[in-house]
Amino acid sequence: MDDDLLSGHLQELRRGTVVLACLALLRRPGYGYALLESLDQAGFPVEANTLYPLLRRLEKQKLLESVWNTDESRPRKFYVTSPDGERLLRALLEDWNSLTTAISTLREGNEQ
Amino acid sequence: MDDDLLSGHLQELRRGTVVLACLALLRRPGYGYALLESLDQAGFPVEANTLYPLLRRLEKQKLLESVWNTDESRPRKFYVTSPDGERLLRALLEDWNSLTTAISTLREGNEQ
Repeated sequence: MDDDLLSGHLQELRRGTVVLACLALLRRPGYGYALLESLDQAGFPVEANTLYPLLRRLEKQKLLESVWNTDESRPRKFYVTSPDGERLLRALLEDWNSLTTAISTLREGNEQ
Repeated sequence: MDDDLLSGHLQELRRGTVVLACLALLRRPGYGYALLESLDQAGFPVEANTLYPLLRRLEKQKLLESVWNTDESRPRKFYVTSPDGERLLRALLEDWNSLTTAISTLREGNEQ
């Protein structure tokens, strides 16, 4: 099995969890760059060129809100999870629970 | 938040788990149709028109092997997880463990 095939399937398993992790971490307002580090520390390593378009997409979908901080010489945008984002996050966490139960059951019945 | 947006994100969260579930269930050889039912019972509801192309893709990637059963008047194809599929399954289950830990930690730090 070649590495691309393996990493493609692993990426597919992780893709949806990055949205979940962003929405959870951005309950506290944060900058894209800081989020990149928090995601990494939290066990969701993501490339900057994957994260930034994702943040813009989530903002467009009104799941994140953004504010410009103009206190510093170079204005920076920070993001925070919107009320809709909070609703989606709760739905994702609930679904994650169902998936976890389903996968544990698969394992028990099948792992031997 | 509209339903399409919600279900799109939920689907994204589940997509990779369907491959994991197929590979686990097909450790015991099975037909596509029977697998559709087992997946549903195991908590991974999938549409036939999603599952069949997925099975063909996994076969093409040599993660599943297929055999024709010609005992009956109408030949039927059954699938079984290949050695490569078994390796991928183990990698996916391991990654699932890491993700589960990461998401629990997110929750603890952030759920209040």
